[in-house]
Amino acid sequence: MVTLLGILRVLSYLSLQRQLWIAQSLAMAHECGVALTAMKEHYFDDLKTGDRFQSEPLNVTEKQLIEFAHKFDPQMFHLSRKRAERTIFKGLIASGWHTAAMTMRLFVQTLNFAEGAIGLGVDELRWPNVVRPGDVLTVETEIVDARPSRSRPGFGIIRLRNVTTNQRGQIVQTMLASAMVPRRKQ
Amino acid sequence: MVTLLGILRVLSYLSLQRQLWIAQSLAMAHECGVALTAMKEHYFDDLKTGDRFQSEPLNVTEKQLIEFAHKFDPQMFHLSRKRAERTIFKGLIASGWHTAAMTMRLFVQTLNFAEGAIGLGVDELRWPNVVRPGDVLTVETEIVDARPSRSRPGFGIIRLRNVTTNQRGQIVQTMLASAMVPRRKQ
Repeated sequence: MVTLLGILRVLSYLSLQRQLWIAQSLAMAHECGVALTAMKEHYFDDLKTGDRFQSEPLNVTEKQLIEFAHKFDPQMFHLSRKRAERTIFKGLIASGWHTAAMTMRLFVQTLNFAEGAIGLGVDELRWPNVVRPGDVLTVETEIVDARPSRSRPGFGIIRLRNVTTNQRGQIVQTMLASAMVPRRKQ
Repeated sequence: MVTLLGILRVLSYLSLQRQLWIAQSLAMAHECGVALTAMKEHYFDDLKTGDRFQSEPLNVTEKQLIEFAHKFDPQMFHLSRKRAERTIFKGLIASGWHTAAMTMRLFVQTLNFAEGAIGLGVDELRWPNVVRPGDVLTVETEIVDARPSRSRPGFGIIRLRNVTTNQRGQIVQTMLASAMVPRRKQ
């Protein structure tokens, strides 16, 4: 028998589940320093040379910076505040590969390719300024070329430039990349 | 008063501390999939064009692969075994940026630059074969150029090629990079 109390219990349970889900999503987004917004899904056919896209901001925390360094780039200017102060950087800086990975995060989130973008290669990856804890990064993506794939009819090849900038407008990374992205099904 | 029992207690405490330290190091190395060996420290002056270095092996686990993807490259072929099976890769593959980060780990560990290597830029980063869970990666580093820095007398600039190979001898990543490394103090 369905009672008011029963309905309330179910509603309250669903609401709890929803709250948990929202809390989890927020926690994950917070951990990655990313604001939660719904991004438009893109196919190759939506893009043309000269198109530009601006990412959400991403916060770089000291904890994330050190954690990445421990796993992938254990050098003194990335690992500990104290030891980093004695290097030519006079303090902690992010691994260039961490900056590259954070740039990928923002790029994937902004372009949000239906079925994903397959990286073919990267050129001219440069780090003209350092990234420090507390920095807020954004990525601007420019499509510099877009052509249908000859060998895979369901895909197109894009050439893009990603420029990563900090909150003071300083460029912290530039790169050129090629990726294979799906075409809209006809 | 120093008693035999006191000395034994101190020795046993020191031994315990040492065991803890060794256990921690082993756990960290195990987590990173890296074998623990003492690597020779390098300065710019130790290197010349044509020198080659072979890294230790590194195991790629499914857990690490998915964790990296969640943080930095949340695309379906990196995130979940089930969803990845429906993509053109027919299973989970590592993000190219994860392969690049693991390559950096092995490179840093192998060359072990005194006071660290400062990345200046990367070119021709390519991923000719995919990396899958269970793969074992090694990196071969070749010094393709080495010259003293003009602007910073305490440093030299090296140009290097890193080739990352899996346990079947397939090349999973190639790149050219430039780095600034310290000279031995005269």
